[in-house]
Amino acid sequence: MCDLLRINTDRGVMLSDNKSRFSINGKPVYHFVGTSTFSEYTVVHVGCVAKINPAAPLDKVCVLSCGISTGLGATLNVAKPPKGSSVAIFGLGAVGLAAAEGARIAGAARIIGIDLNPKRFNEAKKFGVTEFVNPKDHDKPVQEVIAEMTDGGVDRSVECTGNVNAMISAFECVHDGWGVAVLVGVPNKDDSFKTHPVNLLNERTLKGTFFGNYKPRSDLPSVVEKYMNKELELEKFITHEVPFAEINKAFEYMLSGDGLRCIIRMDA
Amino acid sequence: MCDLLRINTDRGVMLSDNKSRFSINGKPVYHFVGTSTFSEYTVVHVGCVAKINPAAPLDKVCVLSCGISTGLGATLNVAKPPKGSSVAIFGLGAVGLAAAEGARIAGAARIIGIDLNPKRFNEAKKFGVTEFVNPKDHDKPVQEVIAEMTDGGVDRSVECTGNVNAMISAFECVHDGWGVAVLVGVPNKDDSFKTHPVNLLNERTLKGTFFGNYKPRSDLPSVVEKYMNKELELEKFITHEVPFAEINKAFEYMLSGDGLRCIIRMDA
Repeated sequence: MCDLLRINTDRGVMLSDNKSRFSINGKPVYHFVGTSTFSEYTVVHVGCVAKINPAAPLDKVCVLSCGISTGLGATLNVAKPPKGSSVAIFGLGAVGLAAAEGARIAGAARIIGIDLNPKRFNEAKKFGVTEFVNPKDHDKPVQEVIAEMTDGGVDRSVECTGNVNAMISAFECVHDGWGVAVLVGVPNKDDSFKTHPVNLLNERTLKGTFFGNYKPRSDLPSVVEKYMNKELELEKFITHEVPFAEINKAFEYMLSGDGLRCIIRMDA
Repeated sequence: MCDLLRINTDRGVMLSDNKSRFSINGKPVYHFVGTSTFSEYTVVHVGCVAKINPAAPLDKVCVLSCGISTGLGATLNVAKPPKGSSVAIFGLGAVGLAAAEGARIAGAARIIGIDLNPKRFNEAKKFGVTEFVNPKDHDKPVQEVIAEMTDGGVDRSVECTGNVNAMISAFECVHDGWGVAVLVGVPNKDDSFKTHPVNLLNERTLKGTFFGNYKPRSDLPSVVEKYMNKELELEKFITHEVPFAEINKAFEYMLSGDGLRCIIRMDA
């Protein structure tokens, strides 16, 4: 991980001179997470640029910029489910669906999707999810429900919600002896991950990942190639397209939480 | 991990008929952790017996029965420090010294021993420990002290105390991006492991181990062979020998906590 360029949302300026390259009416407009790509032209540090196949359609491969790569990499690079194994995915938003897609590509036999919103279940089937659990349908903790479904626990779990209780459930639902839980969701600042340490002594592994352990500059071009070779389908991740002027509509779609994802069209 | 024979200190009876094989004056004496070897003769389930080299001296290799194998395996089988790496060992009792010995065998360049009792430091050098930290000597949390000593954190840490705060420190002292923390100590029933989940997102790994991930029946004979071939020295783990009748003296040595380990001589 790069100490120099790690996302620092508070920085807002270029590293070389601690100044912004944007202004409106003489007032500085600060940079956003190192790229400021909600702009027709931008200035970024060379370390934040990756050269991809020039034939790649930007309105499709732009979804690889964050969540989709993170979910995909969390499964393919970190959880690494063996062929035929069982995988639990917590949260069926875009990141969770990408994690499920990763499990499908890896050849998992059972992909259990967990979400509080049952409207997300049907679409998740397209991403390889084979079974669904809504924690609201059960009186016992979801980790116990999953343990019963899987004779003691899943082989792998991937947490894509950012909710610390889901993180704990994701860890506690893996099987003793070999289970691996991967935390992807970004927690709140004051969250505390709590579990009984005996769960760890039982030879489980707990890992986290940032950007699915992909190194953006060296690895992203090859993920784009996967799309170009049709190994990876990105279209199914896109449910809506809105022009930039209607960006707030995109936030509404996202917040509705019904499994609607979208892409913002930059028409300058 | 074997569901059938996992240590169950409450069981106290043989699996076949739920009865004890010991009695005194007609009253049953229950089995202890599946082996009941504080007895001249014992009856154990076949799954609890491993055949080792008959030439091995039992008064030496008996130390491989639990703590030493656990510490050794925690480093060699689970933490797997790369050659030249840095390793922090929390707790310099017999288990921690065995973990340090494992790090030494693996070729770690820096082995940092952490203990509240400075009397343990001198002897730990024999086990490869190169630096010492006594948390009592510092105002800041020990994980911060270690991060400063190692430019951001150690490559591996192994926790051998059973204290949940040491577990948390052991996890928080490993380096972002690649650090692996291994929990070995047995926690209290009500302990809760708490950490900010962002530590996990920063690509650290948290693992636990039971018996150093050795499978007793298949792996212990080869650890005994390591001793017979002089790859592994066991004598340095033994500081005292007491006859069985003075077993309470052994407990006193242990509880004094000054790094005195001992072995009980079974003279029937």
